[in-house]
Amino acid sequence: MITKTKLTVRYAETDQMAIVHHSNYPIWYEAGRTDFIKSMGMTYTEIEEQGVMFPLLELQCKYIKAARYEDVVIIETTLTKLTMVKAEFSYKVYRESDGVLLNTGSTVHGMVSKELRPMNMKKEKPEIYQMMEKALYKED
Amino acid sequence: MITKTKLTVRYAETDQMAIVHHSNYPIWYEAGRTDFIKSMGMTYTEIEEQGVMFPLLELQCKYIKAARYEDVVIIETTLTKLTMVKAEFSYKVYRESDGVLLNTGSTVHGMVSKELRPMNMKKEKPEIYQMMEKALYKED
Amino acid sequence: MITKTKLTVRYAETDQMAIVHHSNYPIWYEAGRTDFIKSMGMTYTEIEEQGVMFPLLELQCKYIKAARYEDVVIIETTLTKLTMVKAEFSYKVYRESDGVLLNTGSTVHGMVSKELRPMNMKKEKPEIYQMMEKALYKED
Amino acid sequence: MITKTKLTVRYAETDQMAIVHHSNYPIWYEAGRTDFIKSMGMTYTEIEEQGVMFPLLELQCKYIKAARYEDVVIIETTLTKLTMVKAEFSYKVYRESDGVLLNTGSTVHGMVSKELRPMNMKKEKPEIYQMMEKALYKED
Repeated sequence: MITKTKLTVRYAETDQMAIVHHSNYPIWYEAGRTDFIKSMGMTYTEIEEQGVMFPLLELQCKYIKAARYEDVVIIETTLTKLTMVKAEFSYKVYRESDGVLLNTGSTVHGMVSKELRPMNMKKEKPEIYQMMEKALYKED
Repeated sequence: MITKTKLTVRYAETDQMAIVHHSNYPIWYEAGRTDFIKSMGMTYTEIEEQGVMFPLLELQCKYIKAARYEDVVIIETTLTKLTMVKAEFSYKVYRESDGVLLNTGSTVHGMVSKELRPMNMKKEKPEIYQMMEKALYKED
Repeated sequence: MITKTKLTVRYAETDQMAIVHHSNYPIWYEAGRTDFIKSMGMTYTEIEEQGVMFPLLELQCKYIKAARYEDVVIIETTLTKLTMVKAEFSYKVYRESDGVLLNTGSTVHGMVSKELRPMNMKKEKPEIYQMMEKALYKED
Repeated sequence: MITKTKLTVRYAETDQMAIVHHSNYPIWYEAGRTDFIKSMGMTYTEIEEQGVMFPLLELQCKYIKAARYEDVVIIETTLTKLTMVKAEFSYKVYRESDGVLLNTGSTVHGMVSKELRPMNMKKEKPEIYQMMEKALYKED
């Protein structure tokens, strides 16, 4: 499963180099993740309502080409790893007009309760875990 | 002329009150303005390429109802005033699902050169001025 | 009572005009408000722990001169109005190096419970109300 | 050479998990880098005035403990690698009150001209290169 999220670069996202400031890519990844999770069959809002949160443990970004104001960008999101206590999502950001790859990245998330206590997702929330397992990206 | 811009609320836009942080509305207005200007017939990128910039002089926001993560919001944008040296845009932000009005606001912009020198738009860039004059909102 | 908060402009706060993006001023006001409330005798964290929150109802900003990356700015904060259900704070932002006034603004806040229910502060939280009343700016 | 930068967590930096949103750490690293570069003997503003910019090529973050609103955090910054065309900075973020390590990270930067053309710093800007070489962190 791969989802595509389309965004238009906001003026506020640029910096004085006249390119998108690097801190915006994790926010775009998150927009991609929101769509990906929704496509799994449950919104992240609903997951949080069940008392589960996915805070970040790790973040990696590679900046390949600069995005600019008014560029339309596509964020491709996949779930690349899943254990009982962690999930990793991966991202590719393209410029829509010419398909150029701008950025790649990944995020590792813990699964925790509202009090930030680590959870064993497979045991404590099996229906969420199984939904994620189905969405896991498998190269054959 | 009224344009409508659709956005999905990002997790990063929330704060610990679990609502959209108030500083995001001016950024949404700007996304609305980007679409409005494009609908006038020239992108804001092209206006800047002609050496003209529209920095803010004034900002006003009224917060009516809170927006929340994953809400789809509609920003309605209009050009409400135009002089030779200033322009005022006005905004209404609705929640798409039920049409509830969340926020209203306005921004006043100066027209300046790349060196931030005030310009008389009507004289120095008449084609941009006339394009804006046509887009000016007129209640009959 | 007037408090002064000192900040150094971050690169991420600039935009492609090479000035501070206008959406950062409300965030700076908030940093000023944090210090002001702390100076009243209770942190805003402690106020929230008592079940009270101050979401924005209105925001006004005037942009006078641009702030730039690495500028040190001073935010002067005062409490300018107080009713049983609302409070207004006002702000002046100066550049430290030469004392030039860059920006002025104000924010109106409702007083609400964690569920965003409006509260009558004077009746429901008299100790917070009285603390704020003492901090109210009075021109003689 | 190690520099320490002190910041107070802003309300706008929190999200609905009631912790600092992960996208703020790269911005804090940047504040640390600003101080580090200044301590080398030249501000980053002056480096840009010489026509040199340091856009990001790579970003890595590890999130260990959550930072919260009003926490005072210390960002420790070091220059950990330097080649003729790239520089790597590393960061540790501590909570000041109890010294707990919250986050570690690193950023790799290219050295480019204003037109984003890669530069050989050692040849084209030897005085900046040598200044950085002196600041390079060396474990003996």
